[in-house]
Amino acid sequence: MRAVDIITKKRDGRELTRDEIGFIVRGYTEGEVADYQMAAWLMAVYLRGMTRAETLALTEEMLHSGAVVDFSSLGRPRVDKHSTGGVGDKTSLVVAPVVAAAGVIVPMISGRALAHSGGTLDKLEAIPGFRTDLSLSEFRSVLEKTGAALIGQTAEIAPADRKIYALRDVTATVECRPLMAASIMSKKMAEGINGLVLDVKAGSGAFIKTEAEAVELARLMIDIAREMEKEAVALITDMNQPLGRAVGNSLEVIEAFETLRGRGPEDLNTLCRELSAEMIVMGRAAGDIEEGRHVYDEMIGSGAAIEKMREIITHQGGDARAIDDYELLPRACHERIVRAQASGYVEAIDAKAVGHASMLLGAGRASIDAPVDLSVGLRVESRIGDLVASGSPIVTLYFNDEANVEEAARVIEGAYTLWPHAVAPPELIKEVLR
Amino acid sequence: MRAVDIITKKRDGRELTRDEIGFIVRGYTEGEVADYQMAAWLMAVYLRGMTRAETLALTEEMLHSGAVVDFSSLGRPRVDKHSTGGVGDKTSLVVAPVVAAAGVIVPMISGRALAHSGGTLDKLEAIPGFRTDLSLSEFRSVLEKTGAALIGQTAEIAPADRKIYALRDVTATVECRPLMAASIMSKKMAEGINGLVLDVKAGSGAFIKTEAEAVELARLMIDIAREMEKEAVALITDMNQPLGRAVGNSLEVIEAFETLRGRGPEDLNTLCRELSAEMIVMGRAAGDIEEGRHVYDEMIGSGAAIEKMREIITHQGGDARAIDDYELLPRACHERIVRAQASGYVEAIDAKAVGHASMLLGAGRASIDAPVDLSVGLRVESRIGDLVASGSPIVTLYFNDEANVEEAARVIEGAYTLWPHAVAPPELIKEVLR
Repeated sequence: MRAVDIITKKRDGRELTRDEIGFIVRGYTEGEVADYQMAAWLMAVYLRGMTRAETLALTEEMLHSGAVVDFSSLGRPRVDKHSTGGVGDKTSLVVAPVVAAAGVIVPMISGRALAHSGGTLDKLEAIPGFRTDLSLSEFRSVLEKTGAALIGQTAEIAPADRKIYALRDVTATVECRPLMAASIMSKKMAEGINGLVLDVKAGSGAFIKTEAEAVELARLMIDIAREMEKEAVALITDMNQPLGRAVGNSLEVIEAFETLRGRGPEDLNTLCRELSAEMIVMGRAAGDIEEGRHVYDEMIGSGAAIEKMREIITHQGGDARAIDDYELLPRACHERIVRAQASGYVEAIDAKAVGHASMLLGAGRASIDAPVDLSVGLRVESRIGDLVASGSPIVTLYFNDEANVEEAARVIEGAYTLWPHAVAPPELIKEVLR
Repeated sequence: MRAVDIITKKRDGRELTRDEIGFIVRGYTEGEVADYQMAAWLMAVYLRGMTRAETLALTEEMLHSGAVVDFSSLGRPRVDKHSTGGVGDKTSLVVAPVVAAAGVIVPMISGRALAHSGGTLDKLEAIPGFRTDLSLSEFRSVLEKTGAALIGQTAEIAPADRKIYALRDVTATVECRPLMAASIMSKKMAEGINGLVLDVKAGSGAFIKTEAEAVELARLMIDIAREMEKEAVALITDMNQPLGRAVGNSLEVIEAFETLRGRGPEDLNTLCRELSAEMIVMGRAAGDIEEGRHVYDEMIGSGAAIEKMREIITHQGGDARAIDDYELLPRACHERIVRAQASGYVEAIDAKAVGHASMLLGAGRASIDAPVDLSVGLRVESRIGDLVASGSPIVTLYFNDEANVEEAARVIEGAYTLWPHAVAPPELIKEVLR
């Protein structure tokens, strides 16, 4: 078998066998297939697509390129949630403690911020001392003690995916359904879970722009999970504006803590409640979704969720006092209010641009090695459907370095579209796929 | 400007600007754009295509990545011929001396064998002592003395093309019209020529399978030449069977010598005559094609052509006695006749398979660094339209090493299709584009 023949076959739109996919993935991971051959193959996959069978084979090859954790000895169901990424999405910081408080194990492996999109690991690291770089044995130990742990992708987990993902990022092959599905599922299937709740986002701030495409990706991931004998459910959710109000690491942690206290923004709370309810049902801690929602409300209302968050932070080396004293979190020195330049109803927000503005302030990464300023970000003051008067605040920027502030403000101004007539806010949860 | 944005734009089927093409070609040549990014871009070009303006920009960027020779001081028109490659194509060894004997300068830069396709440089090197690795100043000096020189692509000529071609070969992006056109034309336009005669081959032994595709490639190259203020003519020729009888380096040199003596196979002689006539007209040594053909006949008939070949060989360090004594050329030790397994008319020959069989015997290269046995090859005994009896010879194999002989014989057997009824041989010259 030769890499060039496998590239040719995919280039010509033909279906690859499991052996051929195994050859190129293993060859690349082991350094026998060159970067440039993998890059040509990825572009061929991007433009020619993959069948379901090919995508499953790719997922399994990437999964088995590394360790697959076995947590069955923990004796309880293990359920994770994965989001395809958006702006202001801090749901992991809410659902992990809620669901663990309800008695379900949540072994969560997350990623970092890239481009306009935030990353759970960066957010967690805004909590002083919080360690996301646990080894697999530390991961297990935190799970045993608290029921939830939130870590980064270790070197042992799906090394083929790590290497391929880095290449996709620089070869314009990121937004490709089969590659996205295989990347997500190869990591998630390595976590030793029984079930997975997927939050597939569609809209201006997501990698996927339309609901139809989101449904296709979700369906593909559910099928892969089923083939691998795992439960899976997908929520198709709106990402046409940031989720909640806060965008930026420290600011999002505060919003997540507030949500765990029952004081979070309505949209964020609603999504966390639905995702948690699905996870709780999947984890056999409730009989149906309605009961799952009650469990969520109870965990929040009783303080069990915020106490679980305290436990998780402590076991992962963080300073849990930050939960009660937000002054312990990194805080930006300056504020700048961006104001509406006309009056009207907010018709649309380019959420990707909002994420980009936050990145310009230092909250995200333009490239994979760039440093992140955990204190900076922005607060969305006006959301879709809101009536704003000319000169009223639409976004507050929080920053330390003046350098890009004016550019960020211009990006925000350009991100808002106003309309003279009333506009209905978008539906947050568009569909649930089982 | 970032490489990833240029890849994205081409991936999405949009037209690149000259600046963007310049950025990626120069960046790659200078090592600032990575192999894997160029590979992804090439695959996007393969699958999305390029406009004429993009192809012209690519050609010019590759051309100006290196030296452009100026031979205007030689005072006479300079004309070259380029073939897109086939099996048994030794026309360069005939037309260069004929056209130079007619008084036109022929500065010819050629390539090596790869896969099923032969290479002029390897053939020339079958002549003892013949040097193809002349520097540009040696090239000029041979041209001044003899009017023709046949060399390999030097490091100074179109380095961007060298680097990109090597990458295309391992990333399944060879058979792509705009990339082929830009690669050929960037090298040819660096030779300091006034005009170029193109032999664009279509058929089972060519990179291009159909006449329609060959016409498109030819038209594209003619347009590029015109934009760069050079004359160009293209012959669309048949490559559904090897050209002439001999395939393999030393064997093809002998057939070329025989043709220069007026004793060559009819098809080879016809094609050399037409190509030479076009070159002679373009080089102002004849007023029209009919006169050009007469000049060809005269150069062959008078012995001027074979004498010119002697001069070229001598000036390029070769032993010109080989022209008269074929025993001085490398010769294989063994022969094996492959026989027809049934009776019938030869309906089709898979010329690519014949080239592959020759490569299996050692005459060609499976990879770019593989050694070549200059003595081995084969002789085509039966051509399309011939009536063969069961057991009569179809091909004679010439070899030194037994290893692949049986496989080569099987490949030859599979390459021939017989038919019970008479079959007309294919038309050799299908079209002339001006």
